[in-house]
Amino acid sequence: MVRHVVLFSWKDGTGPDKIRDIEQSFAGLAGKIDLIEGFEWGTDISVENIAHGFTHCFLVTFKTKEDRDTYLPHPEHRKFVEMIKPYLNDALVIDYQAK
Amino acid sequence: MVRHVVLFSWKDGTGPDKIRDIEQSFAGLAGKIDLIEGFEWGTDISVENIAHGFTHCFLVTFKTKEDRDTYLPHPEHRKFVEMIKPYLNDALVIDYQAK
Repeated sequence: MVRHVVLFSWKDGTGPDKIRDIEQSFAGLAGKIDLIEGFEWGTDISVENIAHGFTHCFLVTFKTKEDRDTYLPHPEHRKFVEMIKPYLNDALVIDYQAK
Repeated sequence: MVRHVVLFSWKDGTGPDKIRDIEQSFAGLAGKIDLIEGFEWGTDISVENIAHGFTHCFLVTFKTKEDRDTYLPHPEHRKFVEMIKPYLNDALVIDYQAK
């Protein structure tokens, strides 16, 4: 099982409606791209103050690294990435094979 | 379900034996602290080059935010944090209630 961990923070002025739109668009990918095995997300509720400014965490699960490799250039994923770029302050992605 | 996402990077000179020791100590917490509902981890295999230097991702699952609150100051967790401090280059923690 491969976990694809995605953190976002937003540019100043990105309103709650736009952020909700982005959350729903990301979640919608799971319905459009079959090889997404699992999808969940949430907003930061940590209390340690070391989230590096990130407010959103998305956890996308694939069966294999190859499925992750197919997902990244998938047209629906590319479209999503282009859609959010103007609003992104920062992004972090780390993937791992779950032990 | 509350996910507690922990990313680490190591100071230069932290050898593979020490890193293995830290990985095992973190995993060992799941056996020592009952309220850890799930634990998995892995090293970065992302290909997007936006991992911000982090090499390790740990995903700790709790039933509730209150269990997370109890975990943080737990003596076994505090001991682990003190043990790894000399070797940490950077840490990021983000928690979310899984949607």
